Amino acid sequence: MPAAELLETFPNPYPGREYEVRLECNEFTSMCPLGGIESDAAELALLKGGAPDFGVIRIAYVPDVDCVELKSLKLYLWSFRNDGIFYERAVNRILDDLAAAVKPRWMEVVGDFNVRGGIKSVIVARHGARTGS
Amino acid sequence: MPAAELLETFPNPYPGREYEVRLECNEFTSMCPLGGIESDAAELALLKGGAPDFGVIRIAYVPDVDCVELKSLKLYLWSFRNDGIFYERAVNRILDDLAAAVKPRWMEVVGDFNVRGGIKSVIVARHGARTGS
Amino acid sequence: MPAAELLETFPNPYPGREYEVRLECNEFTSMCPLGGIESDAAELALLKGGAPDFGVIRIAYVPDVDCVELKSLKLYLWSFRNDGIFYERAVNRILDDLAAAVKPRWMEVVGDFNVRGGIKSVIVARHGARTGS
Amino acid sequence: MPAAELLETFPNPYPGREYEVRLECNEFTSMCPLGGIESDAAELALLKGGAPDFGVIRIAYVPDVDCVELKSLKLYLWSFRNDGIFYERAVNRILDDLAAAVKPRWMEVVGDFNVRGGIKSVIVARHGARTGS
Amino acid sequence: MPAAELLETFPNPYPGREYEVRLECNEFTSMCPLGGIESDAAELALLKGGAPDFGVIRIAYVPDVDCVELKSLKLYLWSFRNDGIFYERAVNRILDDLAAAVKPRWMEVVGDFNVRGGIKSVIVARHGARTGS
Amino acid sequence: MPAAELLETFPNPYPGREYEVRLECNEFTSMCPLGGIESDAAELALLKGGAPDFGVIRIAYVPDVDCVELKSLKLYLWSFRNDGIFYERAVNRILDDLAAAVKPRWMEVVGDFNVRGGIKSVIVARHGARTGS
Amino acid sequence: MPAAELLETFPNPYPGREYEVRLECNEFTSMCPLGGIESDAAELALLKGGAPDFGVIRIAYVPDVDCVELKSLKLYLWSFRNDGIFYERAVNRILDDLAAAVKPRWMEVVGDFNVRGGIKSVIVARHGARTGS
Amino acid sequence: MPAAELLETFPNPYPGREYEVRLECNEFTSMCPLGGIESDAAELALLKGGAPDFGVIRIAYVPDVDCVELKSLKLYLWSFRNDGIFYERAVNRILDDLAAAVKPRWMEVVGDFNVRGGIKSVIVARHGARTGS
Amino acid sequence: MPAAELLETFPNPYPGREYEVRLECNEFTSMCPLGGIESDAAELALLKGGAPDFGVIRIAYVPDVDCVELKSLKLYLWSFRNDGIFYERAVNRILDDLAAAVKPRWMEVVGDFNVRGGIKSVIVARHGARTGS
Amino acid sequence: MPAAELLETFPNPYPGREYEVRLECNEFTSMCPLGGIESDAAELALLKGGAPDFGVIRIAYVPDVDCVELKSLKLYLWSFRNDGIFYERAVNRILDDLAAAVKPRWMEVVGDFNVRGGIKSVIVARHGARTGS
Repeated sequence: MPAAELLETFPNPYPGREYEVRLECNEFTSMCPLGGIESDAAELALLKGGAPDFGVIRIAYVPDVDCVELKSLKLYLWSFRNDGIFYERAVNRILDDLAAAVKPRWMEVVGDFNVRGGIKSVIVARHGARTGS
Repeated sequence: MPAAELLETFPNPYPGREYEVRLECNEFTSMCPLGGIESDAAELALLKGGAPDFGVIRIAYVPDVDCVELKSLKLYLWSFRNDGIFYERAVNRILDDLAAAVKPRWMEVVGDFNVRGGIKSVIVARHGARTGS
Repeated sequence: MPAAELLETFPNPYPGREYEVRLECNEFTSMCPLGGIESDAAELALLKGGAPDFGVIRIAYVPDVDCVELKSLKLYLWSFRNDGIFYERAVNRILDDLAAAVKPRWMEVVGDFNVRGGIKSVIVARHGARTGS
Repeated sequence: MPAAELLETFPNPYPGREYEVRLECNEFTSMCPLGGIESDAAELALLKGGAPDFGVIRIAYVPDVDCVELKSLKLYLWSFRNDGIFYERAVNRILDDLAAAVKPRWMEVVGDFNVRGGIKSVIVARHGARTGS
Repeated sequence: MPAAELLETFPNPYPGREYEVRLECNEFTSMCPLGGIESDAAELALLKGGAPDFGVIRIAYVPDVDCVELKSLKLYLWSFRNDGIFYERAVNRILDDLAAAVKPRWMEVVGDFNVRGGIKSVIVARHGARTGS
Repeated sequence: MPAAELLETFPNPYPGREYEVRLECNEFTSMCPLGGIESDAAELALLKGGAPDFGVIRIAYVPDVDCVELKSLKLYLWSFRNDGIFYERAVNRILDDLAAAVKPRWMEVVGDFNVRGGIKSVIVARHGARTGS
Repeated sequence: MPAAELLETFPNPYPGREYEVRLECNEFTSMCPLGGIESDAAELALLKGGAPDFGVIRIAYVPDVDCVELKSLKLYLWSFRNDGIFYERAVNRILDDLAAAVKPRWMEVVGDFNVRGGIKSVIVARHGARTGS
Repeated sequence: MPAAELLETFPNPYPGREYEVRLECNEFTSMCPLGGIESDAAELALLKGGAPDFGVIRIAYVPDVDCVELKSLKLYLWSFRNDGIFYERAVNRILDDLAAAVKPRWMEVVGDFNVRGGIKSVIVARHGARTGS
Repeated sequence: MPAAELLETFPNPYPGREYEVRLECNEFTSMCPLGGIESDAAELALLKGGAPDFGVIRIAYVPDVDCVELKSLKLYLWSFRNDGIFYERAVNRILDDLAAAVKPRWMEVVGDFNVRGGIKSVIVARHGARTGS
Repeated sequence: MPAAELLETFPNPYPGREYEVRLECNEFTSMCPLGGIESDAAELALLKGGAPDFGVIRIAYVPDVDCVELKSLKLYLWSFRNDGIFYERAVNRILDDLAAAVKPRWMEVVGDFNVRGGIKSVIVARHGARTGS
């Protein structure tokens, strides 16, 4: 199960300034609960579970009190590896977990998933309102 | 004939948040009813129909109550394969069918078609108004 | 001479929706009346005319009542092949001819011409005001 | 069915010189007889047939007596559109049909097919031996 | 454990011709037994195993009697997902398993793995000798 | 008509060394005598001739006694602008004219023509044998 | 010395329309008065002057009464070749000279200079206010 | 230690105009104090310090009274080479030091750091408000 | 000083097969003993040493008895960080150290260094003779 | 005048090994004696000389006793800035000067010059014979 408790933070070193942190993980993988758009029941039975999904997760946020610690973020994203989860849920779940841990002024999570059945999917979710510039 | 009844949906898992789904299908193909910009009558007679068109279909939407199920979208887009339809109609038709099925807050459909007669065509149509950000 | 009478149109199949059509022709060629930035009089005498220009023409418009028929657009753009015309005139002329034929809500014509004398030129002209989005 | 009788040729205009012709068609599509790596039986039943395949066909040859006429090649490649055929067969079949029609000194056909189930396939087949250079 | 028994084959449809099949899987993932170049013991304890590796597997072969069936190859490559294996072993193992199943005239397997500790690794192994061309 | 008499040469300044000259013209255009793969008779009647072809001409040679003068080469290539000529003829004709003018140790001419009817064509012809290196 | 008197203009052929002209010269070179970030005094003494700078100059403007003639612009930009001038001065000087000659509604000049000492510099200066669109 | 006293300035040569200077240094390197996301204690002990970080620093500013001298900026950025500093601190520190030295109307510093543990980081910080355009 | 003793090896897991390992490190940095092509004495005095060099190191080898362990290679390459060494020496030194540690059948080391003074340098050195394929 | 006496060398640090040095200078510029393919007499009179040429010079060599010192190479290439020289002469002259200074086992010089009159030119010259590998 995605393990929000793995996420660690550290105090924002420049709390008085509105600045932006952008993170990109090219190696996100999870399982699709139903085998997804490309698999049939026979092959799933062989693997005793769903078919693997692959994608890129992009996170951008404006820190307020805390920043996310990168090693803990890596471990958190690894924790999706063997769980079945739909694209829309995965992206919104990462946004919920990160926003709860970091309490940012603004945050955006993008899941950019590999082609399945000839269709590429991107999910974009945001938390809070952006100000300044 | 494009088969809107193939489209299936599932309930939006995060109805309280305004987020965006972007889908891209690189393998759209249909037929041009009149043979199009590059074919003459003699060759169409040989094939008993129009000339094939190829393109990319890009769909972006902000879900409200439902999301489109990807496997059904794949089958729906395949259903254009052997029908004759002009570019402008195809893109507006896909927008009409998808918006009727998904009832999104906002939706955009882009048809990016291959060069014909040295001319590349892109059609962009939108449904609803975009808010937030 | 550029032949506006070659342009044909067909009725906009979705007149109630504000959508956009984008066309790109990579094979535009015309003649520069004075030989242009790279040629001298001696070589022009050999060819009995100006030097050839090459470029890309990009057209974007929001249809109102009519759309431009693509085969007629191809023939219209071919009709510049052996006429001498400056870049600024060519782009504004194409915009005038197309806007008169199609009567769009909004239209933009871009001429993106090849390097001459180490200088690349792009001309951008617009007709009408863009609304919606 | 792939229709070899559509292929037309014209006499090689420079029979005394060993030169090379390379052709590339980006818009090849056929059907996979069994639905292929990404489809299950349920969705194939809906479409009454196999799943579509897409790819690029590249042809290179050294003409001997004849050259292939391009319009006929286009029609020949279109004739695969609604037939079920495996990748290996399609490429070897195109090579057989073209080599029989053109009787080249040397010929190579490459089928570069789109990703299916996360796997991209390329098939390369050759006829005759290359000499000179 | 990598499951060679998942690999299925079908008879080479053109046994009399020396042609080439090239396959590429962009979504290979396995685990590094020791956590690899970038992980320490503390984080591995959290995950109860090694750190994930990601890469691209490229396979090229000249079929003799059999060809590899693509759906079975996909399942075979998926079977590395949760096993710990070093790069050199993974690539040579895939070559051994595939060569045993397909008995090709010639085969090459390339593992192109993602950057770890600032170092990118590629392993190339071959079976049999290439002839003809 | 292609005008070989436009080609001028100058004495090879380093006749004792085997070196290579490579030239590329991105702006080659000619007419297809029959309207080519994409046009029908009706539209050709409008233009009183064939349809335009566009391509890139690449020339490589090892000079012996003479080199080709670039301004004369530009004028020579412009002289194809309004003549109808097939791809295979154009490339072999340019090779014949240039080899006659320059008398090189070795020469190659490549014509890389734009997509027509979804098919891209490249023609490669060579004169003499390459040595050294 | 940069020679503003080389700049010539011609009357804007479409004075009633707000359109845009964009020009790019990839071959700008000047000298750095002090040898710049990468040279020491010893090597400058050898060359009796500063070190060469290279860059791209991009000009965009909305014509009012006049347009700049391209051949004169080429000669004007060449006139910087052997003068020492800092990046900030060069870009603002070109803007001053061109704006004085053309009297545009709006103008922007960008100098995009090559890496020196591992640092790339871009200078962007504007004249007048942009309206419409 | 980052050495702000290395930064030198020169008077803005065009103080009356709001223009922009953009600088990019591809060769920024510093040390991560704790070894960072990819190193364990054992390897750090070998090197007697942290693990190296690499990245690109992009600086954009609108000068007011002074401009930064490029050679001094190069030396200032080199001065981070052997100090341990976190990404967020490095970018905000460079912004503080540069803004104090140059006193710009507006300034932005972007640190675009190499992948560590499969995660790429970008930090964007700004000083002052942008006006005009 | 480059520390060859940091290099560790492990037994080649497939000693009976001639296969190839290719490694690429994008983050190599060292110091130039004399300040190099771009620095003068004054700035070097400020830094009490040479100017930094940056580059990519590519290593390819055919293992015989041993393979290089990647973490130890990373530490070995880091050990050049604060030593002054010329390009030619660095590449040949890495080849000597690695070949002594690994005793490969064949090895190649490429140093691809960043532009200095407008000149990019690549050094390629090889050990042993390549066989098979 | 190209100043061969500027070239300095240093002893090959690894004389017993056959390795390769590749250098690339992106900022070569010289003058064309006659104004070249793009200029007429009137504009040359204005500039009191030829028109500028720009290109990339690539040098590869296998050192024997000496290597070329990079700073001296930079100054040598700068010395062509204000001299008129044809492409073929420039490349062969650089090869002669460098081979005389360095006495390599093998050397290649490539001049890759910018488009003039729509034609790009590349000149490749070699000295000595390549062995080993």
